[in-house]
Amino acid sequence: NSSERNAAEEVCRIVEQSKELQESAATLISRNSQEEASLRQRALALDSSIKRLHSYIASSVKKGNLDPKDAEKLVEELTRASYTLSEGDAAAFLPSKSYGRFLKMFLGPINVHATRKDVQLKVKEEYNNFRDRTAYLFLFFPSLLLLLRSWVWNGCFPALPVQMYQAWLLFLYTGLALRENILRVNGSDIRPWWIYHHYCAMLMALISLTWEIERQPDCSQKQKGIQLFLKWAIMQGVAMLLQNRYQRQRLYTRIALGKARRMDVVWGETAGVEGQIWLLYPILFVLQAFEAYVGLLLLKTAVVGVVSEWQVVTCGVLLIIMAVGNFTNTVKTLVSKSRV
Amino acid sequence: NSSERNAAEEVCRIVEQSKELQESAATLISRNSQEEASLRQRALALDSSIKRLHSYIASSVKKGNLDPKDAEKLVEELTRASYTLSEGDAAAFLPSKSYGRFLKMFLGPINVHATRKDVQLKVKEEYNNFRDRTAYLFLFFPSLLLLLRSWVWNGCFPALPVQMYQAWLLFLYTGLALRENILRVNGSDIRPWWIYHHYCAMLMALISLTWEIERQPDCSQKQKGIQLFLKWAIMQGVAMLLQNRYQRQRLYTRIALGKARRMDVVWGETAGVEGQIWLLYPILFVLQAFEAYVGLLLLKTAVVGVVSEWQVVTCGVLLIIMAVGNFTNTVKTLVSKSRV
Ligand SMILES: CC(C)(COP(=O)(O)OP(=O)(O)OC[C@H]1O[C@@H](n2cnc3c(N)ncnc32)[C@H](O)[C@@H]1OP(=O)(O)O)[C@@H](O)C(=O)NCCC(=O)NCCS
Ligand SMILES: CC(C)(COP(=O)(O)OP(=O)(O)OC[C@H]1O[C@@H](n2cnc3c(N)ncnc32)[C@H](O)[C@@H]1OP(=O)(O)O)[C@@H](O)C(=O)NCCC(=O)NCCS
Repeated sequence: NSSERNAAEEVCRIVEQSKELQESAATLISRNSQEEASLRQRALALDSSIKRLHSYIASSVKKGNLDPKDAEKLVEELTRASYTLSEGDAAAFLPSKSYGRFLKMFLGPINVHATRKDVQLKVKEEYNNFRDRTAYLFLFFPSLLLLLRSWVWNGCFPALPVQMYQAWLLFLYTGLALRENILRVNGSDIRPWWIYHHYCAMLMALISLTWEIERQPDCSQKQKGIQLFLKWAIMQGVAMLLQNRYQRQRLYTRIALGKARRMDVVWGETAGVEGQIWLLYPILFVLQAFEAYVGLLLLKTAVVGVVSEWQVVTCGVLLIIMAVGNFTNTVKTLVSKSRV
Repeated sequence: NSSERNAAEEVCRIVEQSKELQESAATLISRNSQEEASLRQRALALDSSIKRLHSYIASSVKKGNLDPKDAEKLVEELTRASYTLSEGDAAAFLPSKSYGRFLKMFLGPINVHATRKDVQLKVKEEYNNFRDRTAYLFLFFPSLLLLLRSWVWNGCFPALPVQMYQAWLLFLYTGLALRENILRVNGSDIRPWWIYHHYCAMLMALISLTWEIERQPDCSQKQKGIQLFLKWAIMQGVAMLLQNRYQRQRLYTRIALGKARRMDVVWGETAGVEGQIWLLYPILFVLQAFEAYVGLLLLKTAVVGVVSEWQVVTCGVLLIIMAVGNFTNTVKTLVSKSRV
């Protein structure tokens, strides 16, 4: 009958279509992987030519075969070519930075490298938004705990709220470390230290979770460590907020310039953030000094013997390491920027 | 001079090349996104046609317009078309499963969907290897702790080794949960429960970290909870090892069949694993019963008042939830398989 014929025809058509679609998809995928391989080769070759030529020019100038002024012009053109390569669409075909063990451990061998530039920028923007949202919580939670301690809890933290906060901190830092690793794979120039810094912070949050929260009597004495830890957290929140404001501005400039090469952004580095830089760096240094100070205080409480858990000592040492690392890396950033 | 002319020519060539490369890359990327969009549309349209036709055939049979035998044949063909779509190269262009909040929270809006089938299989294989490696550690660490307790530590756990183990557990479960979410995005049919199960396990590891590890006196009484927790962990290791052996076999069958449609694998489900299934399921049920039993024991120690921390109660409840969930989902899997 007609209903049967209809259905049979439809099924036929669909089987046909599914085969066609399968073929189109297979063709597209295999053609793509060929073309991508060829682009990858060209990008690599170009990258090494650029490097070779850079050193050729430098040595020619040294030998006196090349006028320094002319050389400068050539180098500038070369640098532009190199930025076209590293910041344009072709960048997707340059070998991406290695994944690192952290990403591999958590995610396995999945590809997190985005090919399209606008996707990469979106990822970065979302990272900034995420950090923004959390910076407020970063300020809010420890402040709340400290306030409740003196207003409601009679100078003594109960264990649960503090531990919930510490667990939140642990997951937050893990998320930040993962996201920053992903940004790195996608071509961000983030200094490795800022990622290590988050590993240290993860470790600290983890250790603080195992930290026994003493009850009465004497709790206010024995809880000194926790109090210091919370104060450090508030300080982190302030640093994050400032840093966010400044870096978001930079990203907007970069997106606004659209397809413009990064070079232009670096040259126009201070555009729009000039005022902030002179506020940001001094405050960062003050915060870093405070971080080291909190670390020393923690060590002191352990030495004096008020609290003698290994957790307190380890957290103190970690804080001092972080403070020193933050300081040296902030200075390095400052130096490399003043050189441009 | 000649050196200068040489360098200038080279630079010119490189600038030219970088522009060409940028253009090729841009062309490839934009052409790709167009073609991918069109494939995506075709895949979606085909998918909905298949669904429509399925229900049309069903209703025709009901109305008596279609002979049930003919209908069965049509449905079979339709199912094959649907597997070509969902298991072939075109699958990359079907909308991927939604990412879920867990992935978004930890990774941000990055794309973890692999387009190529062989990459997807590699991810899955690596996941199996990862689980294999960890399953041995899963057995080893808690066994070691329990042995050292009776041989070296005189019946009392020191805090640090236990906490290090618990921290390892926390990161491991986080990694597993992330990887399983990624597999899901890449088209795995993993039941959501097995992922929730890892969220529960994460929560348990986290809570166990805040669990005070009592010292002398009475430690062996008060450490009952930890002992039970470690026994549960050993059991988990056994379950994991068995499950791995069985699922790896299945994956190998599937890879060996290469481009064969999944349907063939489901039809040949028991090929190579027949013997194992009859061993696996009973052992799983025993383990699940043991899991619930451990949960009840934990609750008992809390009720009787040996240990009265909230951590013990919560872990007990979590274990019982996990046991019930595991049981129902194992049964559901069994039922849906016996139906094929
Ligand atoms: C010093 C500082 C302001 C410099 O920021 P900057 O001007 O953006 O630095 P750079 O130009 O070297 O940045 C290079 C890249 O790294 C990123 N980056 C720099 N510092 C980062 C940080 N701390 N976390 C994450 N990403 C960072 C930038 O966004 C940029 O990314 P991009 O290549 O994708 O555009 C910034 O590193 C900072 O605030 N660090 C934290 C300081 C600190 O001590 N915090 C804790 C207080 S105790
Ligand atoms: C019951 C069980 C053996 C069924 O496994 P199975 O036959 O592979 O199940 P299915 O055919 O439904 O699998 C569908 C998909 O989910 C995956 N999957 C099933 N159970 C999984 C689990 N527990 N963890 C991760 N992935 C799982 C399979 O690998 C398969 O993936 P694919 O679509 O990419 O091929 C398995 O789920 C299991 O061992 N679960 C754990 C049981 C348990 O209780 N463990 C704790 C003991 S207390």
